[in-house]
Amino acid sequence: MTDRYAEHRRIARDLGVDAIALVPGFNFERLYNAGFSSFERPMVIIIPAEGAPVALVPNLELLSFAALGFEGEVFDWRDQTGYSDAFAAMAAHLPLKSLAVEGQVMRVFVHHALATAWPGLRIIDAEKQISGLRLRKTPDEVAALTRAIRLSEAALAETVAAVKVGMTEREVESLLVAALFRNGAQGLAFGPIVAAAGNAAMPHAHARDVALRAGDALLIDFGGRKDGFAADITRTFFIGHADDRAHQVYDTVLRANLAGLAVTRAGISAHEIDDAVISVLEASPFADYIRTKTGHGLGRDVHEAPYIMRGNHEILAAGTVYTNEPGLYIPDEIGVRIEDDVLVTEGGYISLTEYPKDLTVIG
Amino acid sequence: MTDRYAEHRRIARDLGVDAIALVPGFNFERLYNAGFSSFERPMVIIIPAEGAPVALVPNLELLSFAALGFEGEVFDWRDQTGYSDAFAAMAAHLPLKSLAVEGQVMRVFVHHALATAWPGLRIIDAEKQISGLRLRKTPDEVAALTRAIRLSEAALAETVAAVKVGMTEREVESLLVAALFRNGAQGLAFGPIVAAAGNAAMPHAHARDVALRAGDALLIDFGGRKDGFAADITRTFFIGHADDRAHQVYDTVLRANLAGLAVTRAGISAHEIDDAVISVLEASPFADYIRTKTGHGLGRDVHEAPYIMRGNHEILAAGTVYTNEPGLYIPDEIGVRIEDDVLVTEGGYISLTEYPKDLTVIG
Repeated sequence: MTDRYAEHRRIARDLGVDAIALVPGFNFERLYNAGFSSFERPMVIIIPAEGAPVALVPNLELLSFAALGFEGEVFDWRDQTGYSDAFAAMAAHLPLKSLAVEGQVMRVFVHHALATAWPGLRIIDAEKQISGLRLRKTPDEVAALTRAIRLSEAALAETVAAVKVGMTEREVESLLVAALFRNGAQGLAFGPIVAAAGNAAMPHAHARDVALRAGDALLIDFGGRKDGFAADITRTFFIGHADDRAHQVYDTVLRANLAGLAVTRAGISAHEIDDAVISVLEASPFADYIRTKTGHGLGRDVHEAPYIMRGNHEILAAGTVYTNEPGLYIPDEIGVRIEDDVLVTEGGYISLTEYPKDLTVIG
Repeated sequence: MTDRYAEHRRIARDLGVDAIALVPGFNFERLYNAGFSSFERPMVIIIPAEGAPVALVPNLELLSFAALGFEGEVFDWRDQTGYSDAFAAMAAHLPLKSLAVEGQVMRVFVHHALATAWPGLRIIDAEKQISGLRLRKTPDEVAALTRAIRLSEAALAETVAAVKVGMTEREVESLLVAALFRNGAQGLAFGPIVAAAGNAAMPHAHARDVALRAGDALLIDFGGRKDGFAADITRTFFIGHADDRAHQVYDTVLRANLAGLAVTRAGISAHEIDDAVISVLEASPFADYIRTKTGHGLGRDVHEAPYIMRGNHEILAAGTVYTNEPGLYIPDEIGVRIEDDVLVTEGGYISLTEYPKDLTVIG
């Protein structure tokens, strides 16, 4: 029987620590294929370099926790009595001198409880190593992410088919979220951005009660969440017609997107992809309207490593998924962004996003 | 001019620490009326017991940060060079021996950076005191929360009017989210629960491609998010007709909900409210199907203090908002929950949720 903790034990050995601690979050979900909401109740799994893991679990989660098939001792605690005794019992069961934790996931109150239970414990931040296990997606994970993307694309197609001049941004947003859930989304990856004309030049634009006019660019950045994975897609459409300047802006962004895809393959750095993308925008007449880097990793989390930006010389391995999302943002006039979800392969890439990218006039 | 940090300075003095640290999250949003996504980039505000605050801010957030009208020195840092120098410069500017942090919000990597920048710094967890400032809602906050609730209720009414026998759970969910955004939601408070018959007896049920049948109970638990506040409402409807047993279950849950409201007033404990609610369920023929406590605080976060459960002897002050959401969950048969968002007042309460609670047959 394979040891599902093999990767975590290897990290512990590589770092020279006694054990790895995991708390609820995306690393936990990847390991157990089940999620917990932690809120104010500590829940911790400790995986030693060798031997059985231990867990500290809120009593009210015991039933759900049982479904994980956990292999070791479980120390539960109740709201009425608090968690210090359970931490102490766990420490007595598994003596530790050093522990690696997910520094960007674990919160200070759990850190304090660990430091109290194991006096003198050396706690090191192994975020990079632990979350690094999520960098390379397995075929099953790629399949799940692709399902989230496909349902999101189906929702986009249905929405766009219904858009008409005079409809408001908010009406379009409403059609979009309805289509996402109709197509099987279990949640939204994030609050969608549905923004026309100058509104699309604003970051985190909210849909307004403003009607679409002929000639407007309409930016839609959205994604559905399904079975633990999040899609993140942007397309920019034109209502009724697109003038020459709109064509010029759109074509520049599309060329930047394609330049990023063209250099993508296992072994390239995040810096090199961003450089290929941003260089196209910089060489255009719209260089003053660059606002953002190329993109970010995508998987269980909507924003995860690797960050595709100049200065990040991290090498991308096959199995990495990142968003290629160049944009140009001209204040009070137009915002154009084209965002694909891209799987890095040995020989190149597969765009998991298949929605067409040619300039499209709708409505 | 009033000092917007007066409450935080008072907490620092009460705890005998030099300063309070805040990181992006709901406490930060309450103070500045603006939010930041922190992800992998540390951002920290330090408010000393006396004197000007200081801030550590990622360079790419400087523009948004400027909108806060921050009163003190800002130490920015760039991805390319990392954040340790900025932490060190901040420590040189503001010497500290002790610091209180939000233990359930701040993550370990920020804690480590603080401990490195101020060697020997005593870091204490003041989650209870700092988040405690959110317990009593101001009139403006109640008004904002009420707007989120009203738009959610409007969405529910529009959805319910369209439900028919034979429609699937997923179709109803799709109508609901469309109606939420049409009515002005900027996001979902959480992935809605739209579950009929036995599916409603499952926690965190996902909407299925299963058609509603006459006689089914249909549980809808959902909320829109607007201007920083989250609604959280549950109503349970009956499709076509409701049999005697359905009436009996529904009436029991409704009586439990009303019993909780009846005892609500400033000065009562969370324990006493839960006891009033759960006692009704326990005295019924359905005592075996109790699964949950009465509810939780509600505001910027969907789940916040106070937790309305037996054993929590915390006293509720006027201005507290909590969810009163008793339920009965009979496996493979039915789930009924009725959830109101309740404002505690000196003399009693105001139910911010106004959606009718009489047993309602739809479709």
